[in-house]
Amino acid sequence: MAVDLRIVLVRARNPLNIGAAARAMGNFGFRDLALVEPYEAASQEARSAVGAEDVLAATVTFPSLAEALADRTLVAGTTSGERRKLPIELVALPEVPGRIPPGSRVALLFGSEKNGLTNEDLSFCHFAVRIPTLPDCPSMNLGQAVAVCCYELSRVAGPAAEAAASAAAPMGEIEQFCVEFEEALKSAAYFHWGHSGNDTEKMRRLLLRLRLSHHDLEALRGMIAQIRWKLGKRKADAD
Amino acid sequence: MAVDLRIVLVRARNPLNIGAAARAMGNFGFRDLALVEPYEAASQEARSAVGAEDVLAATVTFPSLAEALADRTLVAGTTSGERRKLPIELVALPEVPGRIPPGSRVALLFGSEKNGLTNEDLSFCHFAVRIPTLPDCPSMNLGQAVAVCCYELSRVAGPAAEAAASAAAPMGEIEQFCVEFEEALKSAAYFHWGHSGNDTEKMRRLLLRLRLSHHDLEALRGMIAQIRWKLGKRKADAD
Repeated sequence: MAVDLRIVLVRARNPLNIGAAARAMGNFGFRDLALVEPYEAASQEARSAVGAEDVLAATVTFPSLAEALADRTLVAGTTSGERRKLPIELVALPEVPGRIPPGSRVALLFGSEKNGLTNEDLSFCHFAVRIPTLPDCPSMNLGQAVAVCCYELSRVAGPAAEAAASAAAPMGEIEQFCVEFEEALKSAAYFHWGHSGNDTEKMRRLLLRLRLSHHDLEALRGMIAQIRWKLGKRKADAD
Repeated sequence: MAVDLRIVLVRARNPLNIGAAARAMGNFGFRDLALVEPYEAASQEARSAVGAEDVLAATVTFPSLAEALADRTLVAGTTSGERRKLPIELVALPEVPGRIPPGSRVALLFGSEKNGLTNEDLSFCHFAVRIPTLPDCPSMNLGQAVAVCCYELSRVAGPAAEAAASAAAPMGEIEQFCVEFEEALKSAAYFHWGHSGNDTEKMRRLLLRLRLSHHDLEALRGMIAQIRWKLGKRKADAD
């Protein structure tokens, strides 16, 4: 049984590439394809790709990346490595199988053909993945990049029948905690110099690095809830 | 430096696939693309593929597979593994790097999108290669298959600067010996029940299995030349 892998195409433009991604997934036994904010025509026209009918029929389109990742416990974003500075660790594709704990629910993200993944997209990732292409010709065709990644990840064994689920909290819980934590910080006037989307990305990255479990998150949410209550009360007392 | 690899597309039909193959080759540092008997339109239209200009500009079209392979010392042919019975050994793609002796001049063959490689094509191969796709969805898109193979073979180190060339004889010498040996067998009335193309394939496969060196072949060609001379003399004496 293969590892639980969701391929997530973020803002894909070309329907042929969506079809090609689905076909390569089918070749290597992966069936979970998600589209995030695809160009409208792209997701409609892709329906006709040869040999990819099963995967395409089950494809889900999500309005946001956070929703596409809610049940995932490990998220990696592909990059051609052309970017000057990545905000997260970069792992070469051949090393990725060794970075996936048993029982993980993995998402692998691919950006649009034109611009790849943004820094905000990458703030949802535990690490970035680079296919080891040549520095002077780094950018792969999207369908071919998906094929190469599916080939490499098909080497990862799936969970044994008796294996425990991964201890890592799913992304949805982390994102929820992120929101609550941010509210608490707002109440505490932490953002008194203004609050940018960049702060949210930083916080998300920090939380991902901690590899929190479901139980860790429950404990933390309890603490933050108490802090928010106290902050709210102080405000009420002051009013 | 990468291993010396020629990608050979045999009877490719779709120009987009030729362009996609060239692009994936460029991504992984391979520049030697050969076409054998391509559908005419295919090789002309492929010239426009994005990011593949260098590889496509250097692409050579050969009238026969033997000519495309003449300088190669190791030949492998890809197959989806759907064929009932292969006439040669089947090696899984992840094992291929371990099967390439240092200094080899490798050719990797891909058949047409519709029918793959024929048994005659495979008679030029030391072994067949299978990308480990699922049995119920084995057939990959040609451009994606080339990408996956280039990714795997980019892990093979090229020859060190001082490394000796491979001892294996190039395919052109083997093919030449094949012809001379066949002539000798004809003179010896070996084919008295008729001679089919199948016999040529069998002989080629046998010679490939022997992994003959250039010096082996020179010795054998001397022996066969002598035998042919003697057979010709006998015939002249008898006349």
